[in-house]
Amino acid sequence: MSMPPSAPDTDPVTPPRPTLAALRDQQPLVQCLTNTVVTNFTANALLALGASPAMVDVPGEAGAFAEVASGVVVNLGTPHAQQRDAMLEAAAAARSAGTPWVLDPVAVGALTVRTRLAHDLLEHRPAVVRGNPSEVLALAGDGAGGRGVDSTAGSEEVADAAATLATHVGCVVAVSGAVDVVTDGTRTVRVENGSPLLTQVTGAGCALGATVAAFAGAFRDDVLEATVTAHLTWGVAAELAAEGVGGPGSFAVALLDSVAGLDDAVLTDRARRR
Amino acid sequence: MSMPPSAPDTDPVTPPRPTLAALRDQQPLVQCLTNTVVTNFTANALLALGASPAMVDVPGEAGAFAEVASGVVVNLGTPHAQQRDAMLEAAAAARSAGTPWVLDPVAVGALTVRTRLAHDLLEHRPAVVRGNPSEVLALAGDGAGGRGVDSTAGSEEVADAAATLATHVGCVVAVSGAVDVVTDGTRTVRVENGSPLLTQVTGAGCALGATVAAFAGAFRDDVLEATVTAHLTWGVAAELAAEGVGGPGSFAVALLDSVAGLDDAVLTDRARRR
Amino acid sequence: MSMPPSAPDTDPVTPPRPTLAALRDQQPLVQCLTNTVVTNFTANALLALGASPAMVDVPGEAGAFAEVASGVVVNLGTPHAQQRDAMLEAAAAARSAGTPWVLDPVAVGALTVRTRLAHDLLEHRPAVVRGNPSEVLALAGDGAGGRGVDSTAGSEEVADAAATLATHVGCVVAVSGAVDVVTDGTRTVRVENGSPLLTQVTGAGCALGATVAAFAGAFRDDVLEATVTAHLTWGVAAELAAEGVGGPGSFAVALLDSVAGLDDAVLTDRARRR
Repeated sequence: MSMPPSAPDTDPVTPPRPTLAALRDQQPLVQCLTNTVVTNFTANALLALGASPAMVDVPGEAGAFAEVASGVVVNLGTPHAQQRDAMLEAAAAARSAGTPWVLDPVAVGALTVRTRLAHDLLEHRPAVVRGNPSEVLALAGDGAGGRGVDSTAGSEEVADAAATLATHVGCVVAVSGAVDVVTDGTRTVRVENGSPLLTQVTGAGCALGATVAAFAGAFRDDVLEATVTAHLTWGVAAELAAEGVGGPGSFAVALLDSVAGLDDAVLTDRARRR
Repeated sequence: MSMPPSAPDTDPVTPPRPTLAALRDQQPLVQCLTNTVVTNFTANALLALGASPAMVDVPGEAGAFAEVASGVVVNLGTPHAQQRDAMLEAAAAARSAGTPWVLDPVAVGALTVRTRLAHDLLEHRPAVVRGNPSEVLALAGDGAGGRGVDSTAGSEEVADAAATLATHVGCVVAVSGAVDVVTDGTRTVRVENGSPLLTQVTGAGCALGATVAAFAGAFRDDVLEATVTAHLTWGVAAELAAEGVGGPGSFAVALLDSVAGLDDAVLTDRARRR
Repeated sequence: MSMPPSAPDTDPVTPPRPTLAALRDQQPLVQCLTNTVVTNFTANALLALGASPAMVDVPGEAGAFAEVASGVVVNLGTPHAQQRDAMLEAAAAARSAGTPWVLDPVAVGALTVRTRLAHDLLEHRPAVVRGNPSEVLALAGDGAGGRGVDSTAGSEEVADAAATLATHVGCVVAVSGAVDVVTDGTRTVRVENGSPLLTQVTGAGCALGATVAAFAGAFRDDVLEATVTAHLTWGVAAELAAEGVGGPGSFAVALLDSVAGLDDAVLTDRARRR
């Protein structure tokens, strides 16, 4: 029995490209250990996407769930003691089980409790770190050398630090901004979709982190491309939602409608990546 | 002074039928010990209904409040240690004081912490257990014998297990699904109202659980009928809200408007029960 | 080098009048230690206003953050043990650093844990206490003598108690109602803007408390006027939002749009204060 040399079955050179349709087919189960401000919006964003959210963040349950989840997001926005324990439990279990998990290091840097926690969590090797420029810089401080760029830095200014952090941790790093920078230390992709209104909705970045966990969970063979597709999805949905809304309140509502209504044809047509 | 033989004052044979108008007259005070994902939506759903929500879930307060509340809902979605203590305190006090309380056993079965808690809570005899088919099956496992039906079971498939659980605990059991099954072990009512969009809004089931607590608190003499009316209210409101919305984000908003605008004439006209 | 006698630089007799434009220029950083029901709505309300919300309520971070925040709001809605510690830490640090902080004593009076906490917090001298009539009465009970007015009292009925509490604590007291009463014990201002729909949205009062913290943080020289302007902003925005909405769900969305779209010209034109 011979096998054609180009057979992709055992050693796929080109893994399946992440798409919305393929994600919805899988309906990935996304475990969220996230802050109290954004739980509702995050869960609704995942449902709109076609994923299944599960907010399991109690010690004694978080680890067991991370073993069976498709993906996990750990968001440090309001890290109470018990949730910190659950986060470490989930991250360790996710790593052991091979479940891709996303670290969203909210406000890491100046605040001591979460900064210590973030460094402890990095030991469990997230598949993706997603944050704003100052958060990525704060995390890169140890491995990449802090450059003193302040919290108003743009994503492009921290692209090098992001790449160094990615190489150091062995993960994908995504920096959110007017242009999103996604890098695994070798390849770097920029996503230009989005809307300024995203900065006026609390949890827009956190929901993006959960969206990354959904895509990374569904497309484990190419986490970089999965992360890029998550950013494109969120960015294009935001552009469509921003058309004609009366302000940030109705934009948040329209954003959920827009994610739910988005398909790959529109996504491909509007994607601005380079 | 004579009293006509038909006077219903001292021994009402026919308790007052639950209606929206009668509920709004009472404005029942509903204590919610619920998960962090749905607190806001639940409180807004109760306000829209005409009830008064109170999220009192701190040990040392939860029990005292359960004594004066009209109804209590205990939802196991994110059961942190301190809230678990408050839940047991509230359930015990509610039972002592005769306050009807509703158990919403979110994700009970696979997850150990909440499963143990659910069984401890059942000792305090809820007036109603409301859940999806797999949750009801998990609870019925001890008393009714698990039947190995998986989590994709429909509500009708677990109707027998629900009736057995209801008899075993001495409560009403409501199973949510495309058709809701409400049973006290003897009488079983099916509610066919609702919308598929309810599955795309996080906390739609949790808010229904709180709605059940409002009706059960207001109409303690007939908890089965109160539970059915809660399901009819939520289902009819969802049907009306689903008309012409652009997706799950605007549906959630319209659902609150719809509950607030609903009246008994429309409710009766659209109710599909059997 | 001479200085004109009218120069206001060193000893301003008339501090800058709080305006929306001036607040947005400052983009005050508002630390929120608030209840789990309203975190999302509060953060979105602050973003719509033009402020920067930060939900830092973990012991070990809360105090350090209160030193650098523009303003702090401490809301007792769901005061779990760890958050209580963080609240005391933040209040003490805010007082030491001169950061104005707002106490929102949700449901203080009947519930023992939060009532004790509220009295402990008063030792750290809030800049503003904002609550409904019964909450203000409960707090005034010690210093002002409880008057036995029940929880259905109107704001006007507790105006004297509010003034006495303000004098006793050395702060501004704001009582919410159909007419809001804002007093520092000497001057009393009444705000008549608002909408009955505000009582149908959970967290409308809590978000107002955060809005007060934003204004008090931005205009520290005149906390009374800052508090009044916060109430006018919220009240006028509510009036505009209420026009033509279909119910409480769409009102909450429109309220965020309305706050974001409001400017000083409209605010001044519609303000009803006396």
